Amino acid sequence: MALADTRFLTRRRALAAALAGQRIDSMLVTHLTHVRYLSGFSGSNAALLLNKDLSAEICTDGRYTTQIAEEVPDIEALIDRPSGEALLRRIKGPRRIGFEADFVSVSQLEKFRKVCDEDVELVPVSGEIEAIRIKKDPIELRKLREVAELASQAFQDMLDAGELAVGRSEIVVAADLEYRMRKLGAERPSFDTIVASGPNSAKPHHGASDRIIEAGDLVTIDFGAHLAGFNSDMTRTLVMDHTTDFTKEIYEVVLRAQLAGVEAATPGTNLVDVDAACRDIIESAGYGKYFVHSTGHGVGLDVHEAPAAAQRSTGVLEENMTLTIEPGIYVPGKGGVRIEDTLIIRSGAPEIITKGSKDLTVL
Amino acid sequence: MALADTRFLTRRRALAAALAGQRIDSMLVTHLTHVRYLSGFSGSNAALLLNKDLSAEICTDGRYTTQIAEEVPDIEALIDRPSGEALLRRIKGPRRIGFEADFVSVSQLEKFRKVCDEDVELVPVSGEIEAIRIKKDPIELRKLREVAELASQAFQDMLDAGELAVGRSEIVVAADLEYRMRKLGAERPSFDTIVASGPNSAKPHHGASDRIIEAGDLVTIDFGAHLAGFNSDMTRTLVMDHTTDFTKEIYEVVLRAQLAGVEAATPGTNLVDVDAACRDIIESAGYGKYFVHSTGHGVGLDVHEAPAAAQRSTGVLEENMTLTIEPGIYVPGKGGVRIEDTLIIRSGAPEIITKGSKDLTVL
Repeated sequence: MALADTRFLTRRRALAAALAGQRIDSMLVTHLTHVRYLSGFSGSNAALLLNKDLSAEICTDGRYTTQIAEEVPDIEALIDRPSGEALLRRIKGPRRIGFEADFVSVSQLEKFRKVCDEDVELVPVSGEIEAIRIKKDPIELRKLREVAELASQAFQDMLDAGELAVGRSEIVVAADLEYRMRKLGAERPSFDTIVASGPNSAKPHHGASDRIIEAGDLVTIDFGAHLAGFNSDMTRTLVMDHTTDFTKEIYEVVLRAQLAGVEAATPGTNLVDVDAACRDIIESAGYGKYFVHSTGHGVGLDVHEAPAAAQRSTGVLEENMTLTIEPGIYVPGKGGVRIEDTLIIRSGAPEIITKGSKDLTVL
Repeated sequence: MALADTRFLTRRRALAAALAGQRIDSMLVTHLTHVRYLSGFSGSNAALLLNKDLSAEICTDGRYTTQIAEEVPDIEALIDRPSGEALLRRIKGPRRIGFEADFVSVSQLEKFRKVCDEDVELVPVSGEIEAIRIKKDPIELRKLREVAELASQAFQDMLDAGELAVGRSEIVVAADLEYRMRKLGAERPSFDTIVASGPNSAKPHHGASDRIIEAGDLVTIDFGAHLAGFNSDMTRTLVMDHTTDFTKEIYEVVLRAQLAGVEAATPGTNLVDVDAACRDIIESAGYGKYFVHSTGHGVGLDVHEAPAAAQRSTGVLEENMTLTIEPGIYVPGKGGVRIEDTLIIRSGAPEIITKGSKDLTVL
C-alpha cells in the first residue's frame, strides 16, 4: 500500500507542477481513466479535485464507500452525487479551477458553472495529464508486460490447439481467442478482435465476419487484452495451407519493415523517423501506396494513446514510452499483411513485450 | 434497401420537426450512435449534417468510401477529416447550426467554432434525438428481440452444459457465458458480465472475481449481448446445491416484486408507479432498505437509455418503449437476489423479450 500511495502522489505532484504555469489553483479531474491514474480508485463514478498545495478531495457515490476507503487511503473521500458538482459546490472563490476540456461535454460544463460561486473561474485544461502518462513508471511497465504476455500466450495456445484452421469462420476464431484471453484472466478484449481472412485481410479496418477461412488465405489477427486498467495490442498474419508468390512477397516486405521499425525505436529518435524506417522499405519494394495508415502508437491505460509514429508526427521518443510498430500492406481484392508488436523504449534496443514468432507461418 | 431508406428518412424527418421550434437551420450530428440511427452508417468515424428542408450531407474518411456508399445510398457522402469540421467549413452563413451538447466536448466545440463562418451560430441541442429513439420502430423491435433471444439461449445452454457449478470461479463462468453469446453471433457482451456469488451477490455493482462458487451460494448473473448496434439486458439468480430459509425468502420476495413490476408496465402508466409496484412489495416484506437501486431502464442502441423507472421518475410509459424490470434485495455479508427481464411495452400485457424460467432453481 505504501508503494502505491507514493506512486499516485508522485503523479499528482507532476500534475500540480504542470498546472502552476497556468496559474490554476485546483484541477477538477473527471475522466475516470485519469481519476484512477492519479488516485488508484477503480470504480465507475468519481471525480478528483487536486489543489496546488497537493491537498486533494475525491468524490464517489454510496455504492463505493468501502472500496474508495480501501483503494484511496490517502485522500479524503466525499460520498455525494453528481461527483464533479459536489466537489465544485464546496469551493469558495476567488479561485481558478481547471477542468478537462477534452472530456467534459458542453452540457456538463454548463452544470459545473451552475454550482460554482460567481468568483470561481473554470479554466479549460488539455493534454496535461496525457503528457505525464506518456512515460510509464515501473509498476505500469510491469502491468503492461503482464497483459501483453497474457494475450501472447492466449494466441499461441489458440494456434497450438488448431483453432485457426481452414473451414472455420473468422468470428469463431475471434471468439476462441477472446475466450482464451478471458480464461487467462483478462477482464475483456481491449478492442474488438480483428480476424481478417483472404480478401478481408486487405481491409485494415475489417472486424470478424462469418466468412469461412480458405486454403491459400492470408489471415490477419489483431487483438489485445484488458486487465486492471491496462491494455495490450499485437497483430500477426499467417498463411493457410500454402503460400503463393504474392503472399510470400508481401509478407517478407512487411516483416523487413517491421524489424526496421523496431530497430529505429530508440530514445532520442524522432517519431517521424520511426515511421520512415518502416515506410521506406515498403515504398522501395513498390508497395508504398498500399501502406495506408501510420506506423504506431503508445499503449497504456488506453489502447491508442500518445506518442504517435506517423508521417506528420512531431516529437521524439524517450525511455519508458511505449510504441507499437505495425506496418502493413493491403492490396484490394488480393489480400494484406500486418505485423505488430508493442515495445517499451529503452536505451539501446527496445523491449518487445508482445511475444510470438514473426517467421512466415503456414498452417 | 428501400425499406431501410424509409426508416432512416422517417427518423430524420422527426428530428427536423423537433428542431423547427428552436429555429435551427441545420443539425450537426457527431455522436456515432446517432449518426448510425439517422443514416444507417456503421463505421467508426462520421458526422451528419441534417438541414431543415431534410437535405443532408454525411462525412467519413477514406477507409469507408465503399461502405458509406453501400450503407447510405440516399445521402451525399463527403470523404474528408475531421468529419464535423469538414461539414461545418462548407456552410455559408447566416445560419443557426445545432450541435450535440451532451456529446461534444468543450475542446471539440472550440475546433468547430474555428472553422465556421463568423455569421454561423452554433446552438447547443440536448435530448432531441433521445426523445425520438425512446419509441422503437418495427425493425428496431425485431433486432432487440433477436439479441435478447440470443443472450437468453446462451444462458440456457450454459446452464444445460453444467458450466455454472460449485467449485468453478465467477470469472470462468462469465467467460463461458460470453463465449456462448459470441458463438451464437454476438459481436461482444453489451457490458462486463456480472457473476456475483455468495457474499458477492450482496454487492449490486460486483463484476466477476476469482471467488470459487460454493454450496449454498446465491449466484446472480447479469449479462447482455451486443449485435448490429443493439443490446440486451437480463439477470437471473440461482441457488447452488441447497436453499436456506434466507435464500428462499428473499428469492420469493424479489420474484413477487418482479412479476408485479412486469404487470404494471402498461401504456399510460406513470414510470414512478412501475417503480412503486416493485418497491412496495419489497418494503412490505421488510427489505425496503436493501433495494438500493431503481427498478428499470430502457434498452436499445445503449444498454441504459430512457425511460427510467425510479422513485423520482417523471413521465409515462408508451407503446413500443422498452423497459427492464429488475428489483433486487442485497443483504450485506449474507447475499442478494436480482431478477431482470427486458420488456417491450404493448397495449395490454408487455412482451417479455428475455426468455428463461424465473422459478427458484437449485443447481
